[in-house]
Amino acid sequence: MSQVDIAEFRTWLLGQIPLLGHMGLGDFDWNGRRLEIPASLAPNVNDKGTGFGGSQATLATICGWSLITLLLREQGLDCDLVIADSHLDYRAPVDGDFSARTDLPDTTAVDNFLKRLRNRGRAPLELTIDVRQGDKVAMQMRGRYVAIARGPQTVDS
Amino acid sequence: MSQVDIAEFRTWLLGQIPLLGHMGLGDFDWNGRRLEIPASLAPNVNDKGTGFGGSQATLATICGWSLITLLLREQGLDCDLVIADSHLDYRAPVDGDFSARTDLPDTTAVDNFLKRLRNRGRAPLELTIDVRQGDKVAMQMRGRYVAIARGPQTVDS
Repeated sequence: MSQVDIAEFRTWLLGQIPLLGHMGLGDFDWNGRRLEIPASLAPNVNDKGTGFGGSQATLATICGWSLITLLLREQGLDCDLVIADSHLDYRAPVDGDFSARTDLPDTTAVDNFLKRLRNRGRAPLELTIDVRQGDKVAMQMRGRYVAIARGPQTVDS
Repeated sequence: MSQVDIAEFRTWLLGQIPLLGHMGLGDFDWNGRRLEIPASLAPNVNDKGTGFGGSQATLATICGWSLITLLLREQGLDCDLVIADSHLDYRAPVDGDFSARTDLPDTTAVDNFLKRLRNRGRAPLELTIDVRQGDKVAMQMRGRYVAIARGPQTVDS
C-alpha cells in the first residue's frame, strides 16, 4: 500500500505542468507498484479523429516520470527526475479514451536504483509504459529516467 | 520554393489537433526543404521551470509529420500519414523559448519514398528532428513515419 495521497499528487502535477491540464486526464490509479493515468480522446484527437501520437508520447512520458517520483517520495528522497531517452513503438490507433500504465520493475532493479541513488546522488531507472485502449496496447514506450539528489549527498555504504 | 501557404497549413493543423492550440506555437517557417516550428516556454514548462519532455516530444513529432505532409501536398498525393516509431534523446534542458526543426532527407531518399508510395500505395520515411534553443540541440528525435495513399492506388512503373 502507498502512503502518498494520489489525488493530491495529481493536483500538484497539473499545477506544475500546464500542458497536462489540456489533456482530459482522469483520476490517477496507484497501488504502490502500478500507476495508471486515463485520458479522454476528445482533447487528444488528431486529423484522423484518433489519438494524437504527441498526446500518447506525453501521457507515457509523464506516467513513467510520475511512477518514479511517487517511489522517491515514499522513500523520502528529495530528487530532480529527468527523462534521458525513450523509444516509442506505435502499434495501433486508439479511437476512444485511453490510458498510460506502468509498473515498477522487479525488486532487485528498484533496490539497485535506490542504493545507487543514496550512494552516488544520481541513478538511472528504465521503465516500460503501455498506452492502452481497453486491453489493446496501442503504443509501448521504453524510457530511461535519471534521478538526481537535490539535497546534500548521502553516503550510507 | 514552396507552393503551400504555410500560414493556412498552420491554421488547418491547429484546427485538427486541439492540443497544439495550448502550446504557444509561433509562425511556421518552411522553405520547401526545411520546417521550423517555434514554441513559447511558458505553456510548456515542467516542475523544474524548464521545457517539459512531453512538450518537446509532441513538438518534434508534429514537426516531422508536418514536413512530410507538406511534401505530399506539394506532390499532389492524398495520404494518411502516421508515426510508426521514434527514438528521443534528451541532451540538455531548455530554459527559454524553443523550436523543432527538420529537413527533408537527401533527394535519393525522397525520390525512393515517393516512387514506392506511388507504386505500392504505402511507404516509410525516416527523419531527424532537433528541438533547439538557439544553437543548442536540447533533444534529438529520430522518427519513422508511414504514408498510406487514401485514393485509388496509382501504379506508374
